[in-house]
Amino acid sequence: MIDNLELIKPISRSSPTKIVLLVIDGLGGLPHPQTGKTELETANTPNLDQLATKGICGLIDPVSPGITPGSSPAHLALFGYNPVSFNIGRGVLEAIGIDFNLEPGDIATRGNFCTLDETGLVTDRRAGRISTRKCIELCHLLDGLVIDEAKLFVCPVREHRFVVIFRGDALASEVSDSDPQQTGVSPKTVTAVSPEADRMASIASQFIAQAKTILAEHYPANMVLLRGFSQRPSFPTMGEVYKLKPVAIASYPMYRGIANLVGMEVLDTGSSIEDEFATLKQNYANYDFFFLHIKETDTAGEDSDFDRKVGVIEQVDTALSNLMSMEPDVIVVTGDHSTPALLGGHSWHPVPILLYSKWCRPDRISEFSESACIFGGLGRFPATQVMPLAMANALKLNKFGA
Amino acid sequence: MIDNLELIKPISRSSPTKIVLLVIDGLGGLPHPQTGKTELETANTPNLDQLATKGICGLIDPVSPGITPGSSPAHLALFGYNPVSFNIGRGVLEAIGIDFNLEPGDIATRGNFCTLDETGLVTDRRAGRISTRKCIELCHLLDGLVIDEAKLFVCPVREHRFVVIFRGDALASEVSDSDPQQTGVSPKTVTAVSPEADRMASIASQFIAQAKTILAEHYPANMVLLRGFSQRPSFPTMGEVYKLKPVAIASYPMYRGIANLVGMEVLDTGSSIEDEFATLKQNYANYDFFFLHIKETDTAGEDSDFDRKVGVIEQVDTALSNLMSMEPDVIVVTGDHSTPALLGGHSWHPVPILLYSKWCRPDRISEFSESACIFGGLGRFPATQVMPLAMANALKLNKFGA
Repeated sequence: MIDNLELIKPISRSSPTKIVLLVIDGLGGLPHPQTGKTELETANTPNLDQLATKGICGLIDPVSPGITPGSSPAHLALFGYNPVSFNIGRGVLEAIGIDFNLEPGDIATRGNFCTLDETGLVTDRRAGRISTRKCIELCHLLDGLVIDEAKLFVCPVREHRFVVIFRGDALASEVSDSDPQQTGVSPKTVTAVSPEADRMASIASQFIAQAKTILAEHYPANMVLLRGFSQRPSFPTMGEVYKLKPVAIASYPMYRGIANLVGMEVLDTGSSIEDEFATLKQNYANYDFFFLHIKETDTAGEDSDFDRKVGVIEQVDTALSNLMSMEPDVIVVTGDHSTPALLGGHSWHPVPILLYSKWCRPDRISEFSESACIFGGLGRFPATQVMPLAMANALKLNKFGA
Repeated sequence: MIDNLELIKPISRSSPTKIVLLVIDGLGGLPHPQTGKTELETANTPNLDQLATKGICGLIDPVSPGITPGSSPAHLALFGYNPVSFNIGRGVLEAIGIDFNLEPGDIATRGNFCTLDETGLVTDRRAGRISTRKCIELCHLLDGLVIDEAKLFVCPVREHRFVVIFRGDALASEVSDSDPQQTGVSPKTVTAVSPEADRMASIASQFIAQAKTILAEHYPANMVLLRGFSQRPSFPTMGEVYKLKPVAIASYPMYRGIANLVGMEVLDTGSSIEDEFATLKQNYANYDFFFLHIKETDTAGEDSDFDRKVGVIEQVDTALSNLMSMEPDVIVVTGDHSTPALLGGHSWHPVPILLYSKWCRPDRISEFSESACIFGGLGRFPATQVMPLAMANALKLNKFGA
């Protein structure tokens, strides 16, 4: 397969036109059994419908048909990065998810507090899902250790989950997990998978030993399990590939972190939908690509709350009129994946997308919905093609070949 | 390109849900000049239409647009195996097509009886298409030879076609064909393409020499041509990839053989459509994936018998009500390729597909037909994506990435 980025990089050009990519997280849904309508179809969305009328619609597959993506591959795909070849390690994802500013050379790993019995076997990989408050307290006990001149940061995430960041010279991430991924066995020894990682394995092992001592009296959270040692990846940036000056407006750390990994600037913003749109307006003159991320649709879907998801979509629709009045050259509205309230989680269903520009060759769709998008002029296509389409519609791509 | 199996294997999970893949061989057709309707559109199919209404429809390309597939790549694609990278050798295909039980290490090759003139040049590669009865008689003369301690099985297929299986130590398939694929030249010498295949080349050459002597008096079938030396491939099994317990219900040896190559259990069944559905019902409790193969649609298409193909489709539709009453979690109905009666053979036209599950996000299609499926919610997609979709709808796939 042609790698998107390799195809685009030599033909992209900088221009004053502006692209807004509005990602309504978990946008796609499933029909409510009583009405036969999805969340998006139920919501009253005059502005989205107007954009759909003037624009062109379709359905995207975040990874490929049938595959339910996590947030990270789903967003990478929307930014044009093949989510199967561009990976973000588990530890790094957790670190960026709590807004931890990873420096080059830092190694991050995900941690679980867990329970060991008196013989040293894991009886609960999540220590009975201790409270986040307890997690914060225990992380305090472990934070700030210095082992072989490497400094350790131990930061709480939620419940039994935390992150360890190892900062120091000559650290490498190629070490095995200590998390055995099952109960009834001992934690595994962290071992180097490549020779360069010997030092990292040794430091991680010492940390685990010290943690065991420090946590001894804190049953059920009397041990740690580590997995997903990883380093901040160095992806080609959107500036390099697309010659854009891109910016992210997102209130959740995870999305801010992923945007940062592909080279976007990340703006401070408030947490409401109105705050995010206001941030866009205030900074509209300074960038030519805006990734605006709405989280609450996904959260409502995950909570199986059909009506709340409908409500959030309507809020986004209302906020949209403000954006439309700024007349960006290209507006793309889509989701990173579907999160049907009926399933209460991410799903594999393709995601509705609309693209509006002066040059978009409109189709006959006048309603932004899953069932209408089936008939849209964009057809059904992989999410990695969204950026090339947006770039083309912004007249930011030169001809390919002569 | 993402390899499907590599993507799916780490995220597949076993669960009690059941998938039925009903393959109506050669299902797709072309419109009858008098009615403008295809075979499927002409058939009265209330059950298929009901499933289309509750489910989601689309069109699949077995290999890629414009490519007319043989049965083997078409089925591999439906099982999720990229038919361009997963090959079944010609000899192996012929062997499994006659239900020959290939053992590990066996080398199979396709054979033709042919005609040589007095100077040793091939004048007819098919020996005037001798009768199958004659073929059986000649195979008897050649069967059971032992050459250099390798045992040879020579088995009739049909008309001038037969299979040779070489069983013995240290046999390799990397030898060239003796079939020159043209007349007016001598048969080629079988030569080793890799050093490991010297022994095989020698044994094959001795067999050809002996066959020439034995057949001398049997003009026009006075010689053999061999091609497609191959060994049973070791594909990843569907059990390994999908964590399914898969089973095949097919009355034709070729399809039983292909199913066996991808690790399906193959059930004994009768040859009628009703028999096959009855076999499914009897074994419903024991498996979670059922490949049910209907051959007669393809045969009717190959015979250019439009009306007979219509009739078979109607029979399948009737039998379907029984299946629907068992309430499988996922039902997929499609074909391996199109066999329009108007063309009298396999064709490149995309094949209608319907998928029904509780989670399928229904579209607006209420009729299972080529022309309606164009507007289906599944869109048009490669046949290799059918399994990921079926797995997703059976809730047998974990999330990809975090």
